[in-house]
Amino acid sequence: MQSYKIPLVPGPTSVPRKYREVYLTDYGSTDLEGDFFALLAENISLLRQTLKTKNDVVIGSGEAMMMLWGAMKSVIRPGDRVLAISNGLFGRGFAEMAEAVGAQSECLEAEDGNFVSVEELEKKLKEFRPDVVTAVHCETPSGLLNPIADIAPAVADSGALFIVDFVASAAGADVRVDEWGIDIGLLGSQKCLSLLPDICAMTVSERGWQRAHETAYNGYDAILPWEKALEIKATPYTHNWHANAALNLALKCLLEEGLENSFKRHAEAAAYCRRRALDMGLKLYAAEESLASPTVTAIMVPDGWRWEDFDAALREEGLAVGGSYGALAGKVFRIGHMGSQADINLVKQGMDIIEKVIKERA
Amino acid sequence: MQSYKIPLVPGPTSVPRKYREVYLTDYGSTDLEGDFFALLAENISLLRQTLKTKNDVVIGSGEAMMMLWGAMKSVIRPGDRVLAISNGLFGRGFAEMAEAVGAQSECLEAEDGNFVSVEELEKKLKEFRPDVVTAVHCETPSGLLNPIADIAPAVADSGALFIVDFVASAAGADVRVDEWGIDIGLLGSQKCLSLLPDICAMTVSERGWQRAHETAYNGYDAILPWEKALEIKATPYTHNWHANAALNLALKCLLEEGLENSFKRHAEAAAYCRRRALDMGLKLYAAEESLASPTVTAIMVPDGWRWEDFDAALREEGLAVGGSYGALAGKVFRIGHMGSQADINLVKQGMDIIEKVIKERA
Repeated sequence: MQSYKIPLVPGPTSVPRKYREVYLTDYGSTDLEGDFFALLAENISLLRQTLKTKNDVVIGSGEAMMMLWGAMKSVIRPGDRVLAISNGLFGRGFAEMAEAVGAQSECLEAEDGNFVSVEELEKKLKEFRPDVVTAVHCETPSGLLNPIADIAPAVADSGALFIVDFVASAAGADVRVDEWGIDIGLLGSQKCLSLLPDICAMTVSERGWQRAHETAYNGYDAILPWEKALEIKATPYTHNWHANAALNLALKCLLEEGLENSFKRHAEAAAYCRRRALDMGLKLYAAEESLASPTVTAIMVPDGWRWEDFDAALREEGLAVGGSYGALAGKVFRIGHMGSQADINLVKQGMDIIEKVIKERA
Repeated sequence: MQSYKIPLVPGPTSVPRKYREVYLTDYGSTDLEGDFFALLAENISLLRQTLKTKNDVVIGSGEAMMMLWGAMKSVIRPGDRVLAISNGLFGRGFAEMAEAVGAQSECLEAEDGNFVSVEELEKKLKEFRPDVVTAVHCETPSGLLNPIADIAPAVADSGALFIVDFVASAAGADVRVDEWGIDIGLLGSQKCLSLLPDICAMTVSERGWQRAHETAYNGYDAILPWEKALEIKATPYTHNWHANAALNLALKCLLEEGLENSFKRHAEAAAYCRRRALDMGLKLYAAEESLASPTVTAIMVPDGWRWEDFDAALREEGLAVGGSYGALAGKVFRIGHMGSQADINLVKQGMDIIEKVIKERA
């Protein structure tokens, strides 16, 4: 297996050995043991602290997008109007998922590298009167951290259900589920928590559950059976004990470091990354530095390079970064300084290589 | 964490240390590395050998039931007639899932501890003319191994799409996907492969893909995006490299042991388990021993015992077995001798404890 000395992919991030070692433990059956449900309950409590919420938290097995899809089906009804605030692939993905559920969806799309203004949003909310508003906190493919706090009051005023994907921000940037009025919030494991992509979590507000009851979606991926899972000690499918144990350790490490310290570590690594990029004459994708995410930096592929050649040259030097998708494919490359990779020394090694590769070609 | 000296739960089975050690490896990003897709391709080839098929195999991340649900949505259309052959909870579950997809479903239910006869099935197929027939190979909650080979010709004659769950049989009992004409077949990891519940696989016939194209389901859990995943080196969501590496090792160990040897090991452990149970005056749930699964034995809870007390008494002695669900809850207990637990010495230790606990009370 080819491995890279300097892993700076924007997720899955490099998994620290202490988290991988958790998988050595010989656990019993999640379906039958009280110990497992005690662990699940503790993880829920740790996630509430991490995400600053009193809401219910559902912990699912597998990758986060599958759980999000189950949630979309659980709270969106055919004919509902869904407004997807977007400045990238994941934002638009919400609109597509809503259409697939049978909703009428619209994208409120920002200009390249920007985010919608509160005024634009307020206007759109009045015109479209959505039942549901979706947003992405860290739009990973664009490297943007969207100011959810700024738009939250307008969404709240509209009365729409608010669904936010904070998969690539939470733990690396401040997420305030209750303050921002997020009804359904999505967290993944393989980004700032630096775990395997085998577990995910979702916050669900009282209004979220109420909507799920009204929708009464009864698919196998429905969120409703999770509402009383802890109480009745039964999950809709066999859960992953190892993944929960690793999540437990990662959350405890995070809270021991302190949320504010983690945010600071991410912000510093990101600021260093951006400064180095600008110093070597590269152009950031974000229109304003305030929109650049502390977890991932999107940079325009240097002039004169095809992305594939640039990528190959970096990899030859032991550096793995990410490309992008959709409209940004081939135009943007991304440095993931999140979780275990939010480390100035690691980022410095990566930026040194980028500088070397560009200089050698020039 | 409470752990048991003698783990005989019918899945998740005890995970051998060599499989857990795979998780220590530091892998890169599945989304970007060619090495990952080479591993995926090898796993598909190993699964084809294991399941005796030339069909496509899709390997999904997470628990098998979620993938089955995506498959049901992908090949069943509202209004389709779905016949669920059943002698237990999982068999009936297919009918419920089909109803949830909007199909018209009927259960062809066997008497307690029995399986439907070919004559009953043929009659039902003529009357109901189903578009899809579903069956469960090992009905775990009932401890029954259903003779799919016997009913396969009738299903094939009917022209219906054939969906079979072999989660708790494959690798421990012979599964012949091509010979039995299975269009969609489901495999889990936490049963006879003794892996974590973090990966699953599905065989898809040409007719299965054709049906998926006609149905054109475009949910996030749809199976269609997997059709060309290897070719375009892209999976619908971030896959789990560690789980694929563990699957690779487990399949290689299985094929090195030899499928026939594994089936024999399971059959012998099961025969031993049943003989000991009968010798101590217990009653098997299976109406005929030929229907009893080589992977799990369902036994009636001994006279004079509440299941909860029996379970607690066994656990006090270090033995973990399973109860059952639905109509069999409290009436049947189950010994899982599958995968790593298909070991006569381990089963002997378990049966000794059961004998001791029953004798002490008598």
